[in-house]
Amino acid sequence: MQTQNLKMNDVMDNKSNPLDILSDLLDQDMNQVNALIIQNMRSDVTLIPRLAQYLIMAGGKRIRPLLTLASTAMFEGPMEKSYHLAAAVEFIHTATLLHDDVVDESNERRGQQAANLIFGNQASVLVGDFLFSKSFQMMVKSGSLDILRILSNAAAIIAQGEVLQLSTTNDIKTSISEYIKVIESKTAALFAASCEVGAVLSTRSVEECKAMRNYGIKLGNAFQIIDDTLDYIADQETLGKNIGDDFKEGKMTAPVIFALQDANDKEKLFWERTLGDKNQSKNDFEIAISYIEKHKSIEKSLNLANQYANDAKKELNIIQNNKYRSLLCDLSDYVLSRNF
Amino acid sequence: MQTQNLKMNDVMDNKSNPLDILSDLLDQDMNQVNALIIQNMRSDVTLIPRLAQYLIMAGGKRIRPLLTLASTAMFEGPMEKSYHLAAAVEFIHTATLLHDDVVDESNERRGQQAANLIFGNQASVLVGDFLFSKSFQMMVKSGSLDILRILSNAAAIIAQGEVLQLSTTNDIKTSISEYIKVIESKTAALFAASCEVGAVLSTRSVEECKAMRNYGIKLGNAFQIIDDTLDYIADQETLGKNIGDDFKEGKMTAPVIFALQDANDKEKLFWERTLGDKNQSKNDFEIAISYIEKHKSIEKSLNLANQYANDAKKELNIIQNNKYRSLLCDLSDYVLSRNF
Repeated sequence: MQTQNLKMNDVMDNKSNPLDILSDLLDQDMNQVNALIIQNMRSDVTLIPRLAQYLIMAGGKRIRPLLTLASTAMFEGPMEKSYHLAAAVEFIHTATLLHDDVVDESNERRGQQAANLIFGNQASVLVGDFLFSKSFQMMVKSGSLDILRILSNAAAIIAQGEVLQLSTTNDIKTSISEYIKVIESKTAALFAASCEVGAVLSTRSVEECKAMRNYGIKLGNAFQIIDDTLDYIADQETLGKNIGDDFKEGKMTAPVIFALQDANDKEKLFWERTLGDKNQSKNDFEIAISYIEKHKSIEKSLNLANQYANDAKKELNIIQNNKYRSLLCDLSDYVLSRNF
Repeated sequence: MQTQNLKMNDVMDNKSNPLDILSDLLDQDMNQVNALIIQNMRSDVTLIPRLAQYLIMAGGKRIRPLLTLASTAMFEGPMEKSYHLAAAVEFIHTATLLHDDVVDESNERRGQQAANLIFGNQASVLVGDFLFSKSFQMMVKSGSLDILRILSNAAAIIAQGEVLQLSTTNDIKTSISEYIKVIESKTAALFAASCEVGAVLSTRSVEECKAMRNYGIKLGNAFQIIDDTLDYIADQETLGKNIGDDFKEGKMTAPVIFALQDANDKEKLFWERTLGDKNQSKNDFEIAISYIEKHKSIEKSLNLANQYANDAKKELNIIQNNKYRSLLCDLSDYVLSRNF
């Protein structure tokens, strides 16, 4: 699994990966989306554009708006109408990041200092609210109640997922299925909505809309499992966030849950102390990694992600093939080799 | 002004006030709204109903949903359709309170311990997001894009107002017009939307919709100015929040801004130290009150509120008279005597 993964990385480094190809193909459209993002960050309350710009302009791959554009393009739908929705999706995502960083007391985000450390928690909470409400303003402009329903449902599911994550944090009894419920809500719901709105905007069949939704859920799950796994293996420079953050916060993610499944009594006491009671000392992260290696938890996590990625691909079977469908297929493999 | 005010209070204590009369008249409708509120707080993530219930069930007068119901009833509009909107408005308000308390580090809200102290800041941020997204789900059920536009605009304006308030906090150069801009955004925008959606739902003329919007803005301004004034005069039991909180936080509200307008050098240094630098000692609040009394800042604040209340009433002139219009007129006087 890990070897496969490394191979994939090598290939991807040599030539363009599906994410870059999609970005190139949809470059003109993404420029329109970026223009809308900048336009909607405007406010005469100067703190708003300053903070929003700090976060949004820091980059990130814009995978969610890209999914909306790619899905619309795949169905030969109305691209112009998709711009507001793609921007809205990125605003929801960014609002979530801002609030997450306050909740997690993060230090780093997208390879730079987390916004809450520079602008304060108060500004992060309120500018998050601003971006969230702006996203609804943009959605209303789509003029489609179906799309408003999809995106407002997604927003409610995300918020529930975040609260659920808060409830499972420091609870070492958290099962894999509870973990999946968390990531399916906090991450995959927005991937799903990003994909589904492209199909709905293109007035496709119920089955095709549902397929895109399911593709998004499974892609999002794979994406998040990899993200959580990287927190135990990646180097900080690649990930753009601190390695070991989840461990420090006592978050119950796949690598830890798998290690706990086969833990002996000594190991259980270790996890109870470090994650359950958040009582950690200097070498604990190294010990955690040694237990994770011992129980092959990284491999198990990557396998789980791999299953979701494969299932994501299958969802696209009912959709007529074209270059966008192929790229979305490839994308589900690419999230497994995430170094973006 | 204060004597007038006291007189009004005496009258109101003896018999029903317009808020209670409206609540009685719309009792059946408000029960439907409350049922929707409870229904939409449900989640299998148990922390959500627990926290939401703690805050929503604590009471408060539900003035915003009542405005939506009263406005719809005044125009003989579709009451059933207004229930989701009234509930949505209360959810937006409650989400704002939750985030406010995190931002302000409040101790008390609606006469009980602030939610963030019991459930933590993290839960308050995330459950606020949940209520906010739920409010959009409810709005979408209204099936009206016009209404969605009004409420999503209001949400964006509120968020901007909150950020603006953050920027003016501890800035003793804040002018009355900047203060009005803050309260018009953070408070009056939701009053305005609550009133306007009743008119839009009842498919009334552009003029009538605009009149209701303006009535709401002016009522909301009067309401907030009184709220800010009570922070320097009310006793804690009446207000259901700590007196002197705004002073402690260095918030620039009407009583302080008026006192600063005529402050001598010694007083300016006092405000600079206590509000600007938040360097406060034990007797400073009493000194602040003595300066506020010296410059008749309470009277000036109440006068300003009085002007807005009168202007609010005038907005209703173009609307055909009925008992609801009379009560909304009376309500603008009643907010001046706020002991609710």
